[in-house]
Amino acid sequence: MSNFTMPAFVQVLEFIGTFAFAISGIRLASAKRFDWFGAYVVGVATAIGGGTIRDLMLGKTPFWMTDPIFLICSALALLWVIVFGKMVIRQQSTFFIFDSIGLALFTVVGMEKTLSLGFPLWVAIIMGTITGAAGGVIRDVFINEVPLIFRKEIYALACVVGGLFYGLCEWLNIDLIVTELISGTSVLVVRILAAKYHLSLPVLKGEDGKCEQDY
Amino acid sequence: MSNFTMPAFVQVLEFIGTFAFAISGIRLASAKRFDWFGAYVVGVATAIGGGTIRDLMLGKTPFWMTDPIFLICSALALLWVIVFGKMVIRQQSTFFIFDSIGLALFTVVGMEKTLSLGFPLWVAIIMGTITGAAGGVIRDVFINEVPLIFRKEIYALACVVGGLFYGLCEWLNIDLIVTELISGTSVLVVRILAAKYHLSLPVLKGEDGKCEQDY
Amino acid sequence: MSNFTMPAFVQVLEFIGTFAFAISGIRLASAKRFDWFGAYVVGVATAIGGGTIRDLMLGKTPFWMTDPIFLICSALALLWVIVFGKMVIRQQSTFFIFDSIGLALFTVVGMEKTLSLGFPLWVAIIMGTITGAAGGVIRDVFINEVPLIFRKEIYALACVVGGLFYGLCEWLNIDLIVTELISGTSVLVVRILAAKYHLSLPVLKGEDGKCEQDY
Repeated sequence: MSNFTMPAFVQVLEFIGTFAFAISGIRLASAKRFDWFGAYVVGVATAIGGGTIRDLMLGKTPFWMTDPIFLICSALALLWVIVFGKMVIRQQSTFFIFDSIGLALFTVVGMEKTLSLGFPLWVAIIMGTITGAAGGVIRDVFINEVPLIFRKEIYALACVVGGLFYGLCEWLNIDLIVTELISGTSVLVVRILAAKYHLSLPVLKGEDGKCEQDY
Repeated sequence: MSNFTMPAFVQVLEFIGTFAFAISGIRLASAKRFDWFGAYVVGVATAIGGGTIRDLMLGKTPFWMTDPIFLICSALALLWVIVFGKMVIRQQSTFFIFDSIGLALFTVVGMEKTLSLGFPLWVAIIMGTITGAAGGVIRDVFINEVPLIFRKEIYALACVVGGLFYGLCEWLNIDLIVTELISGTSVLVVRILAAKYHLSLPVLKGEDGKCEQDY
Repeated sequence: MSNFTMPAFVQVLEFIGTFAFAISGIRLASAKRFDWFGAYVVGVATAIGGGTIRDLMLGKTPFWMTDPIFLICSALALLWVIVFGKMVIRQQSTFFIFDSIGLALFTVVGMEKTLSLGFPLWVAIIMGTITGAAGGVIRDVFINEVPLIFRKEIYALACVVGGLFYGLCEWLNIDLIVTELISGTSVLVVRILAAKYHLSLPVLKGEDGKCEQDY
């Protein structure tokens, strides 16, 4: 076990998260009768889209351009859905946990990359949230649906909560590893509680049926 | 009054424009029954989306990452819609004016940032138009509607007209402040006239019901 | 003929490809009853969208910001559709060839720009594919349709095939011009065969009617 270092552990989590994010994109693409290529693109976009937007805003080369592992991982996710087909539905609760792990990890990773470039905490929280949640928005734009995270249970807000805990830990001068664990765990807990108890934010009182603004 | 400097005046206009843009995003999100978080994201995207695309194309850090005022202003817009609810409809004409002020200001600001980086006038006009109008396109993509500005009254074209006036004034060696005022006013006038008289460009004769291309 | 150099030849192809891509965007916009401005924006986005995303990811200024020819070419495409109207349908097979030429050329151009910046082949293949095919995705997002290339005959995959041939030729130390011709031709051949014989990838077995994931 002594060889099982922290970076290796993070890499395993990263792989799990990427896989789960890609699965989510591929499954929704399959519901829209996309072909294998289309499903792969949606899977990849779900998995790496958030980090790509973050890196473009930070003025950095998108992270996946330096290591093919993320594209390979998404290809394995495609293979998984092709092989298991409708049985993937029964693996739902496992993928929910994997997806939540990905959300937690990507939030922390996104925050730390932003902080390391000298941006203040509030920018880091936004970038952490984008890293975790923007891939799902791109996915929903591609499959031509209203983005799920704008309407259903708390998802992106879990990243914000994780970001606030990160800031709190830093302020209290808590050790980095502990800060990361507290921050990531808080994302995980908020997300799991939200899904279990169907917690969601209030819906904005709509102006019924009004989808166009007439001035 | 002597302390009420030009920069302060521009900041007030910027706040008004951001607020109006965010309100427009939040209202349309509410019509789609988005939750508070979703509505906030759409509001923010409407308000800062255009300038963000501009800055990415110019190779600059997105403007809102250096000053939280734009996110705060969008949060106030969300609060406004939550508090006033359907009464916001009655404030419509006020928000139309605010929105037009934002359109005018953002166009001029976008142009000047582009020109200051050494790009030619035609690039500046495009960047001014993107700054003013692209946020509304992102908003409509998020709420899964065909972008309004591609079909309804003249909107983005007002930015182009303002850009042409800016170029004309520069060519005539007119003072910078006067150039800005003429350019911004022309955006405002075109937009207000377009809305008042429902001026719109011709619609392209469609190939009826054809939404897919068969080769 | 001796003055008709290779760069001039490439420029002619570039013009043809840009024109065909813009036509495709403008036609689909017209089917959605967009106005002239909206149709122009969709045409431009189809023509330059892929290369713009590539350049942003590569950390470069978008290519069209240094030469107005691409915007002029898209304007000519708009004029073409306005003048010829429904007759454009009859020019379909010509535009299909032009579109395929554009796809081939943009793939090769995108790959070479990426390789010249020191990125490995697999990144270049992705960037070549994005250059060729991402404009069509942006087009379909703007007209609020599920992206065509995710569901219909092989399109983006032709770029991947062309990219693999490029890599093979490089590995065999084949002359640059010949490499470019082989790579571009393979894109062309795959795309034309796919369209002629309606070749498409398998569709992913959908979870019927499931467009939202319930965890």
